[in-house]
Amino acid sequence: MPSIDINSDLGESFGAWSMGDDDAMLDIVTSANVACGFHAGDPAGILRTLKAAAARQVSIGAHVSYPDKVGFGRRNMDVASDELTADVIYQIGALQGLAQAAGTRVSYVKPHGALYNTIAHDRRQALAVIAAIRAVDSRLVLVALAGSSLIELAREQGLTCIAEAFADRAYTPEGTLVSRREPGAVLHDPQLIAQRMLRLVEDGTLEAIDGSITRIQADSICVHGDSPAAVAMARELRRVMEQANMRLQAFAGDRP
Amino acid sequence: MPSIDINSDLGESFGAWSMGDDDAMLDIVTSANVACGFHAGDPAGILRTLKAAAARQVSIGAHVSYPDKVGFGRRNMDVASDELTADVIYQIGALQGLAQAAGTRVSYVKPHGALYNTIAHDRRQALAVIAAIRAVDSRLVLVALAGSSLIELAREQGLTCIAEAFADRAYTPEGTLVSRREPGAVLHDPQLIAQRMLRLVEDGTLEAIDGSITRIQADSICVHGDSPAAVAMARELRRVMEQANMRLQAFAGDRP
Amino acid sequence: MPSIDINSDLGESFGAWSMGDDDAMLDIVTSANVACGFHAGDPAGILRTLKAAAARQVSIGAHVSYPDKVGFGRRNMDVASDELTADVIYQIGALQGLAQAAGTRVSYVKPHGALYNTIAHDRRQALAVIAAIRAVDSRLVLVALAGSSLIELAREQGLTCIAEAFADRAYTPEGTLVSRREPGAVLHDPQLIAQRMLRLVEDGTLEAIDGSITRIQADSICVHGDSPAAVAMARELRRVMEQANMRLQAFAGDRP
Amino acid sequence: MPSIDINSDLGESFGAWSMGDDDAMLDIVTSANVACGFHAGDPAGILRTLKAAAARQVSIGAHVSYPDKVGFGRRNMDVASDELTADVIYQIGALQGLAQAAGTRVSYVKPHGALYNTIAHDRRQALAVIAAIRAVDSRLVLVALAGSSLIELAREQGLTCIAEAFADRAYTPEGTLVSRREPGAVLHDPQLIAQRMLRLVEDGTLEAIDGSITRIQADSICVHGDSPAAVAMARELRRVMEQANMRLQAFAGDRP
Repeated sequence: MPSIDINSDLGESFGAWSMGDDDAMLDIVTSANVACGFHAGDPAGILRTLKAAAARQVSIGAHVSYPDKVGFGRRNMDVASDELTADVIYQIGALQGLAQAAGTRVSYVKPHGALYNTIAHDRRQALAVIAAIRAVDSRLVLVALAGSSLIELAREQGLTCIAEAFADRAYTPEGTLVSRREPGAVLHDPQLIAQRMLRLVEDGTLEAIDGSITRIQADSICVHGDSPAAVAMARELRRVMEQANMRLQAFAGDRP
Repeated sequence: MPSIDINSDLGESFGAWSMGDDDAMLDIVTSANVACGFHAGDPAGILRTLKAAAARQVSIGAHVSYPDKVGFGRRNMDVASDELTADVIYQIGALQGLAQAAGTRVSYVKPHGALYNTIAHDRRQALAVIAAIRAVDSRLVLVALAGSSLIELAREQGLTCIAEAFADRAYTPEGTLVSRREPGAVLHDPQLIAQRMLRLVEDGTLEAIDGSITRIQADSICVHGDSPAAVAMARELRRVMEQANMRLQAFAGDRP
Repeated sequence: MPSIDINSDLGESFGAWSMGDDDAMLDIVTSANVACGFHAGDPAGILRTLKAAAARQVSIGAHVSYPDKVGFGRRNMDVASDELTADVIYQIGALQGLAQAAGTRVSYVKPHGALYNTIAHDRRQALAVIAAIRAVDSRLVLVALAGSSLIELAREQGLTCIAEAFADRAYTPEGTLVSRREPGAVLHDPQLIAQRMLRLVEDGTLEAIDGSITRIQADSICVHGDSPAAVAMARELRRVMEQANMRLQAFAGDRP
Repeated sequence: MPSIDINSDLGESFGAWSMGDDDAMLDIVTSANVACGFHAGDPAGILRTLKAAAARQVSIGAHVSYPDKVGFGRRNMDVASDELTADVIYQIGALQGLAQAAGTRVSYVKPHGALYNTIAHDRRQALAVIAAIRAVDSRLVLVALAGSSLIELAREQGLTCIAEAFADRAYTPEGTLVSRREPGAVLHDPQLIAQRMLRLVEDGTLEAIDGSITRIQADSICVHGDSPAAVAMARELRRVMEQANMRLQAFAGDRP
């Protein structure tokens, strides 16, 4: 039986400010990208999310970021390599500590926001993130944008790197994301999205924005959970996958 | 041969701001209380200090704090227990990650500043810190103020807790610190300080501020390194200890 | 025609995190306590709130706080007097700059959260806040808890100080707030709340939690806006006041 | 009698961390670029620097920055225009409040670090900073890099903009700064530096790095004060200027 992983960004509340519905999403996803306090997440809130994930045996990833709470990690920052490496180690370690307290463990690393986008193509920063993961635990899996040069780079450096597709995004004929600035870049129809992802999992293809068929290698599907509509969309995706007898399973394996 | 540990607060620079002479102090101390980013320390700077400590086989402690950089962790904060527990776990985990990258490990926890003083007597916050240590790794040793009720409390809760004396502070006849607001609370003569600490290690006693002799149980001596005079004082302490054939050894054991 | 002011805490979103419905509340209140970036509020978000307030001629107050975003300014901090004075000046000045850019001005200061509660009785911190206001502009009005010793202290120091009542809180026979830890401390019925406040404005009395009648001197009524129910409650309060021919007017006067 | 202004970055300590010798520098400079809390400076420390500047009638500038303490404002950040405008307004306002409390006022704005370098050529961010200054007080002078396109842009937008030269930097034949990555970019000889600046003030020329003579229009000279050697260099510059009967005077005029 073929299997697929569904991941989502969680633990992104901060103090008195709430974001997303972590409990609802943890009933849907198999992997949780948990904020580490640099773009979002305070320790007590992160710990609550980790405990809820542990109770559902959801796999945990460190959702590491540039240090920028007010910008939610979405603004590019020209961080020196040694700073970036140390920042990523710090975040992974902090999440490992909280995961240990929650009775689970960190299985993978998925950079967030501007850092995610930058290391998809910026070799210097990519190497700094890779060095951080290797310095903490080289068995941690790196999650990268499908089609990005990061995947090969990380593998050359000895990491396991898996690719993810975005459920609600349009793709170019070349298999890359259509920029958000383009019309049609973001999809909104839950049924359509679920069918597209099912096809992707079944035969590795997707209809691109121009109607052509493009091939994308992805081991995980990223969904959002920051609004009721997003949660409903993720739920529909899971329903369609289960109906098609796809096994929903964390790429990083079930936690011990 | 009797042995004693000397500890000091290190890794307290922050970004472009320097504090203390970590390299000089790492040649003197056997245990380094390393800032974890809440009162001081940025990841890259902490990592540099940890590497320098690892090179000298100095034992590493997590110098955890309230979240208050501008106040350097010296201001009391009324933090809820679950917040405090999670804050301490987060800091220990972050330092463990960086220590792993530096080729060393965290052996103990020593709270900083206002948190240190508060948990010496505040049972609620003390229990929150103890819970944090137990949740991460119950083998981590807690360093507490000699004579404080925290020591017994931590031991009841299953932690190893060791007591420390302050080299440059006067003590009351009851074996507690003379408040900094009192005249004579802080000592400045390196020779006197070293001789006092030698006596403390040799027979467990100290001359109190009123001239009487008080008994203090301490497994470690805390010294400062934030000025050239402080470094010189710490160096003299080490010299006198070595001259008296005291073995200088981390209480937490040599690192592996 | 008698008049009353209704105030509420606004501008408390932070970056990507939203809090409250500022636009809805600005249609209800006559005075907006706007966050200054220490417990909540980022400059761009604060500026948006100030522009929306200016468009409705709502009076602006600086909602100053301890520096504690993760704790939302709700945790007591033992801040030195000179630090507190400077922190408050900094926040008022920052808000004045943004208010100038929004075409309005800051008319009053209302401390937030733990700082608000502390200076209601702590003379040292109260004097530090008063000194800050006097240093920036002694014409700024201070808003204080009805019945607190702060009111007299501020007036002795030369400030205009007005008292506020809390719409949804129960009062003791002595005219002080019933602690939130007591049952019945928080009221939930919009009609009841509106009637209580109408009576307070009309004859200066309120039914206390034990059924007795207590006298409270208040120039403003504080309402919440952090949930749809809170907004509805505030709207009902305004409706009842208008129906009773109360003039809704900022205590600090209409802005120029 | 010709006159020249000497400016320096001050108020850059942060909490327990000290930077530079503000008192020594305030005896040398005529204009103080005072940190506003985004890259450096806490309110109490900024206030102390402002009082010391006020006592010496040194002109005050707002040294505004990206929000990045750990990076000391030296890292480029891709901040949206409305965020940047609001951030700059917030910082100017905060400094105005503190200046008012110190008995002085803010006369100019000099962006710091990465923001300074970016707006020298990035039109979008430059316009965002200009908009901020205009929104607060269009009489505030903007200090810009001599030779940069920012000068003309700011003047087109209605601001007074003055140019500054860097005392310890080499210049290209085109009158721009030699990159710090090039050999010889930074000068170290106090006598040579003072003579170069005297020539610049006297006839508007400077010997470029290739030995040719370049023309630079500058109304102010920027000196550093972050080390004893830097202070000595600044002092020598002032001595040479005074010996040559140059009048040392703030470009923004003496404060009232």
